[in-house]
Amino acid sequence: MRISELSRRADVPVATVKFYLREGLLPPGELTSATQARYADAHLERLRLVRALVTGVGLSIDSTRQVLALIDHPPGEVAEVFGAVQQLLTPTDAVDPARERSTRTLVEQWGWTCEEGYDAPLRRLAGALAAVDAAGFEIPDGVLDRYAAAMHAVAEIEIAHVPRTSLSEAVRYMVLGSVLMEPVLLAVRRLAEAQVATASEENFRPG
Amino acid sequence: MRISELSRRADVPVATVKFYLREGLLPPGELTSATQARYADAHLERLRLVRALVTGVGLSIDSTRQVLALIDHPPGEVAEVFGAVQQLLTPTDAVDPARERSTRTLVEQWGWTCEEGYDAPLRRLAGALAAVDAAGFEIPDGVLDRYAAAMHAVAEIEIAHVPRTSLSEAVRYMVLGSVLMEPVLLAVRRLAEAQVATASEENFRPG
Repeated sequence: MRISELSRRADVPVATVKFYLREGLLPPGELTSATQARYADAHLERLRLVRALVTGVGLSIDSTRQVLALIDHPPGEVAEVFGAVQQLLTPTDAVDPARERSTRTLVEQWGWTCEEGYDAPLRRLAGALAAVDAAGFEIPDGVLDRYAAAMHAVAEIEIAHVPRTSLSEAVRYMVLGSVLMEPVLLAVRRLAEAQVATASEENFRPG
Repeated sequence: MRISELSRRADVPVATVKFYLREGLLPPGELTSATQARYADAHLERLRLVRALVTGVGLSIDSTRQVLALIDHPPGEVAEVFGAVQQLLTPTDAVDPARERSTRTLVEQWGWTCEEGYDAPLRRLAGALAAVDAAGFEIPDGVLDRYAAAMHAVAEIEIAHVPRTSLSEAVRYMVLGSVLMEPVLLAVRRLAEAQVATASEENFRPG
């Protein structure tokens, strides 16, 4: 297909497609003349992924290039690609080492492993717990364990639906699913809180 | 207690306490001389709540004043106060009416009610679903239902722990719990995804 059709089918402006080509995020098409190139379905799939990473997830061009490199030269299984992508997606500030250790202990109590090199989500959790502490909120017993059980159930169904068509599609699904579904999950939580609060008024009336 | 002790016990600088007093977020103390006032435990509790709303949650002074008005003149049960606070906490942009209707249908399928006047979380969910669509991500069947079940379980334990000491403490707990725990929940989800992806590698290998 020509660049115009590629642009139309991916719903990405031609100027943006050319920008991705210049940045090397999209491989060049097959030249059919001095000024025209032909693009294959693989280009369309790649373009959709780039668009999702840059616009949907908000990755920088550099981070997008790193994700693409992982897909093109996967270090191992999909899970490893995903772990590596997670590292890119999860910028974490420095965390107090004692806090990181206690968080690791907590997570290990859930029977979860936190392999080295894939510990960005762990540090993110440690940072979030530190922020809760700093705001003077005491997390009641059992709440974090319930979070773990609930999120495990959520992750199971999400990961059961990873497309098997290609590594590129699998990563696109997992990255978009990770990031774009966060506001959905949080909105559902707020609704659930309102629901449970209304239903159990008797149970938590103060006094 | 004097303002210095109030400041120390709440871990809020004296200048900030004076600012809250000027803004009417904290009621004046009992004057003991022309330049000195005495504060009671009720002031300390209120100060902790104001601090949590302004610093922990990031509410504006105006929104904080509205939350305090709800606590001081509750429209009904705790659940109603909480619902009203949720409206303040959840700014939502305008949502396509068709999208809002379909979201309402979805939520009602879960057996949840969305009372009028308390529909900010519903509109938030509708907006989040629209954003997912716009990014070209198709939510697999069953994922949203799993979210609902998981978040209901989470809300149940969270709301079971609402303190019964006072309306002020109950609202402080629910507001802080709603807002501050969001990053914690999301970090646990990322960890769960990594966990499930690693454990079920066989199941989602592409090809």
